[in-house]
Amino acid sequence: MQLLGKLPGIGEKTATRLAFHVLRSPHAYARDLAEALLAVKERVGLCSVCMNLTEADPCAICRDARRDPSTLCIVAQPTDLIAVERTAGFRGRYHVLHGVLSPLDGVGPEELRLKELLARVAGQPPVVEAIVATSPNVEGEATALYIARMLKPLGVRVTRIASGVPIGGELEYADGVTISRALEGRREM
Amino acid sequence: MQLLGKLPGIGEKTATRLAFHVLRSPHAYARDLAEALLAVKERVGLCSVCMNLTEADPCAICRDARRDPSTLCIVAQPTDLIAVERTAGFRGRYHVLHGVLSPLDGVGPEELRLKELLARVAGQPPVVEAIVATSPNVEGEATALYIARMLKPLGVRVTRIASGVPIGGELEYADGVTISRALEGRREM
Repeated sequence: MQLLGKLPGIGEKTATRLAFHVLRSPHAYARDLAEALLAVKERVGLCSVCMNLTEADPCAICRDARRDPSTLCIVAQPTDLIAVERTAGFRGRYHVLHGVLSPLDGVGPEELRLKELLARVAGQPPVVEAIVATSPNVEGEATALYIARMLKPLGVRVTRIASGVPIGGELEYADGVTISRALEGRREM
Repeated sequence: MQLLGKLPGIGEKTATRLAFHVLRSPHAYARDLAEALLAVKERVGLCSVCMNLTEADPCAICRDARRDPSTLCIVAQPTDLIAVERTAGFRGRYHVLHGVLSPLDGVGPEELRLKELLARVAGQPPVVEAIVATSPNVEGEATALYIARMLKPLGVRVTRIASGVPIGGELEYADGVTISRALEGRREM
């Protein structure tokens, strides 16, 4: 119960419920879960190319020859990569930063996988466009600016994902900053 | 109670609570409320220029000489105008459609204030840009397309507000369609 209670979002009561569930479950379930917990720490590491979590190095996306290596989508976390990948619309490759710049939390450029990004852009195959897909909040924007300043001198086209009213959303209920950005970012029809 | 219960979002219980509140309130409050209810129907009408709700015709925005008459922000409802106006970032004028195209609900182009928009664009002062700020849902997009087809032959630049991840939002929690649109709509940094 103590160990389960350390998982995020799981308090004392839920930990108790989970522990009793394991007690009541067949022995095989407890063994499978224990093995999976060990395996995830043993087998999953970072892809040496894109820094995404993977069992095989390079990861499946970096190995996929049908994916365009000249376009990089730069995300903060592996969960963001999954979110973009779920749309099935992006056919380039990724670079995972494992964080965003946040001086107040002691996260500077050294804490992010920026050296690996720089090496990748300077190396082969050539990178033509880097799409910075960090979240449009303070840290995400600061990180995007930092990356733009870092990569532009290398002749890479640095772009930023659009901010605005989310699809299916109502203008009336959007916050002021989002409406301002949606107006600024308007496009020719 | 019966009449209060007809207001949107007010059920039987709330209507009862509101009615008893009026009963317990000073007489002056009931009279002020009654007068305001009458006044809103008597005094508020549509601005003959932009179709917004107003007590004076033309409305305060259409009379304001500091606001650029060459840029129109086209919105579906007066509440959308208020949402854009709250951002304090838009210095042009408005046109309120009073609806969006929705064939299933029997709302065609004739039901919207499109004739007035057309007359305005064809008239003076000249309109250079029309920003279609309908919501980025099915009806809002259809309405935007209709307006673009209507105004472009008149030499007006028709633009659409940006869709994407809302400011302060997390990429991870954005829906797939919004992420797709944010990637498509990416801009040079």
